[in-house]
Amino acid sequence: MKQAILIRKDLKMGKGKIATQCAHASLNAAFKTLKKKKKKFNSWKAGGMKKVVLKVDNLKELKRYLSKAKRERLVTTIISDAGLTQIKRGSVTAGAIGPDDDQKIDMITGKLKLL
Amino acid sequence: MKQAILIRKDLKMGKGKIATQCAHASLNAAFKTLKKKKKKFNSWKAGGMKKVVLKVDNLKELKRYLSKAKRERLVTTIISDAGLTQIKRGSVTAGAIGPDDDQKIDMITGKLKLL
Repeated sequence: MKQAILIRKDLKMGKGKIATQCAHASLNAAFKTLKKKKKKFNSWKAGGMKKVVLKVDNLKELKRYLSKAKRERLVTTIISDAGLTQIKRGSVTAGAIGPDDDQKIDMITGKLKLL
Repeated sequence: MKQAILIRKDLKMGKGKIATQCAHASLNAAFKTLKKKKKKFNSWKAGGMKKVVLKVDNLKELKRYLSKAKRERLVTTIISDAGLTQIKRGSVTAGAIGPDDDQKIDMITGKLKLL
């Protein structure tokens, strides 16, 4: 079981901003999974809450991957920044898929590179 | 309401590693809060799950801040890396405090700088 977190490269965010957006995406998708797929959530939690942070080129690519994941009935989330620092208020910064079975996550995100 | 995530500067982790460790710390402390202080968790969630990522110089400083938080009965977590990449297996990389009231978090972490 693992969760994939997708972060936009093109916004050129600093590492603190990236960390915050990733934590936000991870939390949102984790809580959605807890509600909708409790068994999967529990098995992910028991296994140490494995997660990978992957980079996407831009908003279009981010949305494309999240749509692909939705079509496979995976839990997804998309994050907009509260926008107090660095980037334009309301910009979409990141997304997350899962947690779900490794092979389901890999089928969608397997081509993306680690941040 | 907010959550503080503390990350070690001295390990010189890359931004992907930092993002993963922060997400992990954030999730752990959030789920602990959900269990132990459900009202606080819900009010934090309703307010958009605000979080800040702060830097600490080293392991000693990280532990000092987490101990201070514990003495104030704040929820804390400490994260060790699974250690497959970049750093030594089992290294403590990060921690988190809260979510809890802004002023309680600030009282502990107010002197730390944003990552």
